[in-house]
Amino acid sequence: MTTSSTPTIRAAIVGYGNLGRSVEKLIRSQPDMELVGIFSRRPELDTDTPVFPAASAADHAGEIDVLFLCLGSATDIPEQATGYARHFTTVDTYDNHQLVPDHYAAMGEAARAGGNVAVVSTGWDPGLFSLNRTVADALFPDAQQNTFWGKGLSQGHSDAVRRVPGVKRGVQYTIPSEEAIAEAKAGRGAEITGASAHVRECFVVAEEPGAASEEAIREAITTMPDYFAPYTTTVHFITEHEFERDHQGMPHGGHVITSGDLGGSRSSVEFALELGSNPDFTAASQVAYGRAAARLRAEGRTGAFTVLEVAPYLLSPVPLEELIRRDV
Amino acid sequence: MTTSSTPTIRAAIVGYGNLGRSVEKLIRSQPDMELVGIFSRRPELDTDTPVFPAASAADHAGEIDVLFLCLGSATDIPEQATGYARHFTTVDTYDNHQLVPDHYAAMGEAARAGGNVAVVSTGWDPGLFSLNRTVADALFPDAQQNTFWGKGLSQGHSDAVRRVPGVKRGVQYTIPSEEAIAEAKAGRGAEITGASAHVRECFVVAEEPGAASEEAIREAITTMPDYFAPYTTTVHFITEHEFERDHQGMPHGGHVITSGDLGGSRSSVEFALELGSNPDFTAASQVAYGRAAARLRAEGRTGAFTVLEVAPYLLSPVPLEELIRRDV
Ligand SMILES: NC(=O)c1ccc[n+]([C@@H]2O[C@H](COP(=O)([O-])OP(=O)(O)OC[C@H]3O[C@@H](n4cnc5c(N)ncnc54)[C@H](OP(=O)(O)O)[C@@H]3O)[C@@H](O)[C@H]2O)c1
Ligand SMILES: NC(=O)c1ccc[n+]([C@@H]2O[C@H](COP(=O)([O-])OP(=O)(O)OC[C@H]3O[C@@H](n4cnc5c(N)ncnc54)[C@H](OP(=O)(O)O)[C@@H]3O)[C@@H](O)[C@H]2O)c1
Repeated sequence: MTTSSTPTIRAAIVGYGNLGRSVEKLIRSQPDMELVGIFSRRPELDTDTPVFPAASAADHAGEIDVLFLCLGSATDIPEQATGYARHFTTVDTYDNHQLVPDHYAAMGEAARAGGNVAVVSTGWDPGLFSLNRTVADALFPDAQQNTFWGKGLSQGHSDAVRRVPGVKRGVQYTIPSEEAIAEAKAGRGAEITGASAHVRECFVVAEEPGAASEEAIREAITTMPDYFAPYTTTVHFITEHEFERDHQGMPHGGHVITSGDLGGSRSSVEFALELGSNPDFTAASQVAYGRAAARLRAEGRTGAFTVLEVAPYLLSPVPLEELIRRDV
Repeated sequence: MTTSSTPTIRAAIVGYGNLGRSVEKLIRSQPDMELVGIFSRRPELDTDTPVFPAASAADHAGEIDVLFLCLGSATDIPEQATGYARHFTTVDTYDNHQLVPDHYAAMGEAARAGGNVAVVSTGWDPGLFSLNRTVADALFPDAQQNTFWGKGLSQGHSDAVRRVPGVKRGVQYTIPSEEAIAEAKAGRGAEITGASAHVRECFVVAEEPGAASEEAIREAITTMPDYFAPYTTTVHFITEHEFERDHQGMPHGGHVITSGDLGGSRSSVEFALELGSNPDFTAASQVAYGRAAARLRAEGRTGAFTVLEVAPYLLSPVPLEELIRRDV
């Protein structure tokens, strides 16, 4: 059971987008990992880390204990992940919830064929939120559970804001409504619908600042069907300077709230994230589960694992004995 | 890996105090458990469940898949738990944090000798808070972590309130200060000291209601050295009727807050509990880990496990495939 000291884990990354860059930064600050290189489909990347063509990855299989799959979920992961799992122990953040069972099955088959471990769908949702949903639900005979997302930058809604005539720059944040969170904790979460669960907040730089143009923009945004009309939406007009200072990040976050009766008393469990950067935090979870993947493989395990199947101590570089002393 | 459907788990309880009574209630609402009986040192208990003398427990070893140790942590567990672990797969809520490593070692030895599993120190703290401390800390290269307890009924402080002359009935709740929680989320938790982390709230029924006697009681409470003097303390005077209506429960709760830098961005992770009843929620965690203990034993494992070593899906009566579909 105990893995009290692990040799250095040799890590590599495939795919160098937002997530790949965050994983690169974080591997550098892990006490037990070294970064062997980055595989990319592009010939040149702006990094000091050695870069290799993605097509040559299999040639490096013997030098790598865990491969971080930082590819897009839309098409890259479904098309390419099993190919990597045949040659490497992998960890991914695949986030197409409905297709996770298929991904898990395909990665399990590929990983077993290659004698590897594949930890799938880490990150925060899926990932840490999944872990919390399962644990909290298991406590209550009849749990009421709600997941809220935000405060978070919403790419699709920001694009919609920017398409409104007169908008120079714009972002949209989705924020769980405080009322909805209080209702969920009180066990009345079943009545919360999409539009009452979240409010939308927009920050806009107008082409022509002034009351008339701003009123027209506000009207166009708040009445936009599907995107904004059913939600409580506020629009703030700001200067270009403020936009650049305050709205360049990729914040995100959310809450999983579970409550229920325990034979006469009610209790609630809340897991909440406030993320300064979505890719940095997703990477933090992926790196911790990457450690677990390498350790499971070192214990002789093979096949696919979701976060639900990974014992928590495997995420930490701290030896189990010390974790028990410090955290239990 | 997969335990897709488990046969009914035959459970029993030893020790019938607050926790034992809560475990009894909750086992009744588990789809996959049946309650064989309760072992007690007392000959008669007020329950419909079959009661057996604690001294005869070993005679029933063949009829029981998991034994819930609901004994006191002060002396019962250190003196008696290993004796049970030799004959039964057990789960306990031992909460003397400093002695958990010794308890883990002793239970490991006894459980291995008996071919059993012992899951130790479940509940909420230790237990779910321990799990969250380890997982959240593993995400940050340099985590700042704070645990806050409350809103909770404090037995020792309630006793101190009741010793004040003129107090007829009284309770004291310890509440984490909102300011301290905000500081912890912002990463400034290292500066939070005991007295600034919590505020104290007292509800008192005076022997002789009236401004003069109430002012004297308030003064005596808020200036009491050690117990109240360094804290922000508020005293509310209520009627006996209000006391009986609103202050008979054993509420508790708390927060584990972890934050840190992830290579340029800051994020925070919060795990928060609001418990209508401390023993009911402690029991909910113990019952879920009792399920895990029985399943680990059924898989052929033996020895002691902390919550850090238990894969999350083992807590749930829902089959793994369905959990992956529903929660990941
Ligand atoms: N589970 C969770 O909580 C969670 C949270 C957030 C995101 N995610 C998942 O993480 C995945 C990756 O996110 P991401 O933000 O890193 O996506 P991204 O920036 O679009 O990168 C995806 C891929 O596109 C390629 N790419 C990146 N920049 C490029 C450029 N300038 N020109 C050409 N190609 C470029 C990279 O591959 P090459 O280097 O090979 O070109 C990269 O692997 C997402 O699909 C999402 O599903 C999961
Ligand atoms: N990990 C956590 O989060 C957490 C949280 C809360 C509590 N706990 C732990 O749980 C332990 C049990 O708590 P508890 O509230 O159930 O303690 P309790 O009510 O004092 O019961 C402890 C034992 O005392 C005996 N007892 C109970 N009522 C009695 C009575 N009226 N007369 C004589 N004996 C009686 C029972 O054994 P018999 O039936 O054999 O007489 C019982 O097992 C605590 O020691 C605490 O350490 C852990």
